[in-house]
Amino acid sequence: MSSVPSVSNSITVRLELPGRATAVSELTTAVERRGGLITALDITAASNDRLRVDVTAAARDTGHADELVEAMRAVDGVEIGKVSDRTFLVHLGGKLKVESKVPIRNRDDLSLIYTPGVARVCMAIADNPEDARRLTIKRNTVAVVTDGTAVLGLGDIGPLAALPVMEGKAALFKRFADIDAFPICLDTTDTEEIIRTVKAIAPGFAGVNLEDISAPRCFEVERRLRDELDIPVFHDDQHGTAIVTLAALRNALRVVHKQLPDVRIVMSGAGAAGTAILRLLLHAGARDVVVADINGVVHADRDDIAAGGQEHLEWVAAHTNPEGRTGTLRDAVADADVFIGVSAPNVLQGKDIATMADDAIVFALANPVPEVDPIEAAKHATVVATGRSDFANQINNVLVFPGVFRGLIDAAAADISENVMQAAADALADTVSADELNPAYIVPSVFHPDVAKVVARAVTEAARAEQGSAAPGDLDSAGHIVGAVEA
Amino acid sequence: MSSVPSVSNSITVRLELPGRATAVSELTTAVERRGGLITALDITAASNDRLRVDVTAAARDTGHADELVEAMRAVDGVEIGKVSDRTFLVHLGGKLKVESKVPIRNRDDLSLIYTPGVARVCMAIADNPEDARRLTIKRNTVAVVTDGTAVLGLGDIGPLAALPVMEGKAALFKRFADIDAFPICLDTTDTEEIIRTVKAIAPGFAGVNLEDISAPRCFEVERRLRDELDIPVFHDDQHGTAIVTLAALRNALRVVHKQLPDVRIVMSGAGAAGTAILRLLLHAGARDVVVADINGVVHADRDDIAAGGQEHLEWVAAHTNPEGRTGTLRDAVADADVFIGVSAPNVLQGKDIATMADDAIVFALANPVPEVDPIEAAKHATVVATGRSDFANQINNVLVFPGVFRGLIDAAAADISENVMQAAADALADTVSADELNPAYIVPSVFHPDVAKVVARAVTEAARAEQGSAAPGDLDSAGHIVGAVEA
Repeated sequence: MSSVPSVSNSITVRLELPGRATAVSELTTAVERRGGLITALDITAASNDRLRVDVTAAARDTGHADELVEAMRAVDGVEIGKVSDRTFLVHLGGKLKVESKVPIRNRDDLSLIYTPGVARVCMAIADNPEDARRLTIKRNTVAVVTDGTAVLGLGDIGPLAALPVMEGKAALFKRFADIDAFPICLDTTDTEEIIRTVKAIAPGFAGVNLEDISAPRCFEVERRLRDELDIPVFHDDQHGTAIVTLAALRNALRVVHKQLPDVRIVMSGAGAAGTAILRLLLHAGARDVVVADINGVVHADRDDIAAGGQEHLEWVAAHTNPEGRTGTLRDAVADADVFIGVSAPNVLQGKDIATMADDAIVFALANPVPEVDPIEAAKHATVVATGRSDFANQINNVLVFPGVFRGLIDAAAADISENVMQAAADALADTVSADELNPAYIVPSVFHPDVAKVVARAVTEAARAEQGSAAPGDLDSAGHIVGAVEA
Repeated sequence: MSSVPSVSNSITVRLELPGRATAVSELTTAVERRGGLITALDITAASNDRLRVDVTAAARDTGHADELVEAMRAVDGVEIGKVSDRTFLVHLGGKLKVESKVPIRNRDDLSLIYTPGVARVCMAIADNPEDARRLTIKRNTVAVVTDGTAVLGLGDIGPLAALPVMEGKAALFKRFADIDAFPICLDTTDTEEIIRTVKAIAPGFAGVNLEDISAPRCFEVERRLRDELDIPVFHDDQHGTAIVTLAALRNALRVVHKQLPDVRIVMSGAGAAGTAILRLLLHAGARDVVVADINGVVHADRDDIAAGGQEHLEWVAAHTNPEGRTGTLRDAVADADVFIGVSAPNVLQGKDIATMADDAIVFALANPVPEVDPIEAAKHATVVATGRSDFANQINNVLVFPGVFRGLIDAAAADISENVMQAAADALADTVSADELNPAYIVPSVFHPDVAKVVARAVTEAARAEQGSAAPGDLDSAGHIVGAVEA
C-alpha cells in the first residue's frame, strides 16, 4: 500500500521569498509536484522586495519532508529559515499537566487544603477507607501502566520511549471520559516485579489500564493483578481490542444478515489481542472459531502443542476448532464467514479472501500494515475493517477504553468481567443505528459525542448488576459532610 | 496552649430565620458568645416572614463546631438546614486533576498526539533518551511518594489516608513552582519494597519527593534511592526541614549578632528531621552541637550507644558534643545559644529557656504542640520560632521544597548535595533584607512572591556548578525540532 501525505508528518517551514508576483505560486507548485500537501500558508512579514512566509505541508514521512524542503529551496530566490516538525512541536514539554483544583491564595486556603485542616480529612479516611473515593483523587484516577515492551508496532523500546504513548492515552482518557489518568512507565520487564510494583502503587488509583506489555507476560500480569487488587485492571491491548472487535463484528453481521452462533470465524494470531478477542467471542456465543498462528491452525494434535508445555495454546485448542481442522491459515479461511487478523502484515492475499463464503467479513487489524490489503480484500468481502484511520471501519480502542473506565469508576467496580465487556461491546454496536448501518460504517467515529457516555452507562449497569453494589455512597453520607451548601 | 477558632474548622450552616428585625443579630451574638468566629453571612432567600441564611463560622475543633450549631438552633424560631464542613467540602473529589496540554479536536490532532505521529517521538527518545526531558512530561514531573507511616503528627495512618496530604503537597508544587507533581501512595512499608517500587516507576519523573516515611527506614530508603537513581531524591521531612531551619537560624543569628561557628546549639530529637538538620548545620560550619533524644544527651559512652548496634546514634555521637557533655536535655540547654527541637511536645518549660545564654534562639518545631510554649519561651529568648502558622516565624517547608525542585529540574540535576541544600538555605535567608529583619521576622511568608524563584535560582546554580552540567539542551538541538516557528 502506498502511503499518502499525513498531518502526522507535517512540517512548517519559515522562508523568505522574493517579492515577484509568481513567487508564492512557484513555491506551492514546487511542493505539490514533489507530492507534498500544503495545509497552511501565512505571509508573516513583507518588505518592498521580500516576503516572509510560513508554509505548512504534510509529507509521507521524514525523508519526504526533507525532499519538500529541498523543493522549496530550489525555487529561485527562496531562503529557507527554520524548519519545524509539527508532531515534535506538539510534544515539546510533554502532553499532560497536573493542576490543583483548589485555590491557594492565602493562609486560610493553605490551612484548609494542607496542614492543619487536611489532618481531619486523613483521619476520616483512616476511619473509613471508602471515604477515599469521595475525598481524594482516587475518585477519578487511573494509572496507565506500561513496561515499554510492545509499544504500538515499535516493539520493545523501553519505558522512557513509551512515555509519549502513555501521555497520549492519558490525554484521551481526559478528552473522552473526563478521567484523570497518569502514566506509570516501569523500569522492569520482570513479571513478578511488575505485579509487585502495580500492587504497591495501587492505593491512589480507581483503576489500572495496562498498556503495551508484551505477551505472554501480559496474561500473567493481568490475571494476577485482577485477582490481587480491589480495583479493576484492564489491559487495553487485550480487552479494549476485544470489545471494539466484538462490537464491530456484531454490526458487520447485521450488515450481512448472519448470526454470531452460526458463522465460522477464522482468526490469525493467538497473542494478547487474539486471545482476548477469542475469549470474548466465545463468551458472546460464537461456536465455531478456528485460530491460526505462525505454525498454522491450532489443534490439540499439532506437534508443538501435543508436545506439551504451551498451556496457552492448549487452552485455545481445547476451546476452538470444533471440526478438528488442520493445515494452514489459508486452508482455514476457505469458506469461512469471518476473518479476524491480529497478527502480521500480508499473511493473506485478495485471492484468499475470494475463497471465503458469500458476504465475507474481513477484519485485518495488524498495524500499520494489515494482514491483507484492504482494497484487495474489499473486492471479495462485503465488510472490511482495519486498524488504520485512512480506511473505512477503523477498529480503534479509543472507542472503548474511556467509556469502559468511566463506567467502572462510576460503579466503584472492583473488577471487570466478560459480562461487562460484552455489555460494552453491545452498547458500542448500538450507537450505529439501523438507519446509519452500512458496509463502510460498522463502528462510529471516535468523535461521535455519545460513544463514551453510552459505553459508560452500559458498563456501570452491568458492573453494578454483577457485584450487587449500589451507587457509590452519596457525598452527603460522609461523616462531617452533612451536605454541600451551594454558594 | 489554648486553641483559637480556625478556618480549618469552619462550618457553613444553611438555616431559616424568622423575619423579625433582631433575628440576624441574635444569631451572630449566639455564635460569638459560644466562642465562634463568623466569617461570612449570606441571606440567600427571603419571604415575608422568613429569611434563608448561610452562616460560615470558624470553630476551634469539630466538637466546638457542633456546639456552634446548637447555639444557632437555640435562637428562637431558627430552623437548621444543611451543615457543611468547609475543609471536607474543599476535599470533595480530591484536590488534583490531570489535564491534556494539547487539543484533541479532530482526527488530525489525534494523529499528531497519538498514533501514528507519536511513534516518531517514541523512536526519537529510544535513540536519544535525553530527549525525554524535552518531549515528555519527564521535563517537569515529580513523584510525591509516601508509605503513610509518619503522616503529619498523625503517625502510621496508611497510604490511603495519607493521600490528602500528598495531594496537597502536589498542589503546593504547582502553586509555588509550576511543577507537575503526582502522589504515589505505597501499599508497603518494607524498605526494600519501597526502594524497588520507586526505582521501577522512576523513568517518567524528573525527581522524587519522599514524604512522611518514618525513621529509621526513611534513611535507608533515601540513601539507597539517591545512590541508585539518576534523578534527585529529596525527603522533605529531612532535607526540606533542614534547609528552612538553617535559613531561619542564619537570620536569627543576624538578629542577635552571633556567628554559626561560635554558638553552642542544643538539639532535641535525632529522628529524620533532627539528623538532617544536624548534618546540614555541620556542613554549614556549626562546631558545637549537642543532641539529646529520649535517653538524654547523645555521647559515645552512653550505655545504650556504647552497647553497639545503633549505628545512627554512633554517628551522631562521633560528630557532635565536642565537650563530652552528659546528662539530660535540660542540663545541656543551660548556657546554650540555640535550642532546636524536632521531637515532642513540652519537653522544656519557660524556666529552662531562662537558663540559656543571653540573646537565646529557640526553635520549637514539634507540631502541633511545640517542645516549649512559645509564649513562655519568648519571655526569656530573643528569637522564638515554631512550626505553627499562628505564631511569628513559622518554620514551614513550603518555603523550600517548591523552589528546590524547580532548581533541580531546571538544572536537570541527577542528585542533591549538601552544598546545594546550603545554597538553598542561604538564598532563602537572603530574601529577608536587612531592613526587614527583626526577631519576629526571620523567614519570609510562604506567599512572598520571590521565595521559590530565588531558591530555585540558587539551587540551579549550585547544582550546575557541582555536576559541571550545562543548561539542559536547547530545544532547537533535538533531532527533528530544527526550530519552533511562532504562530
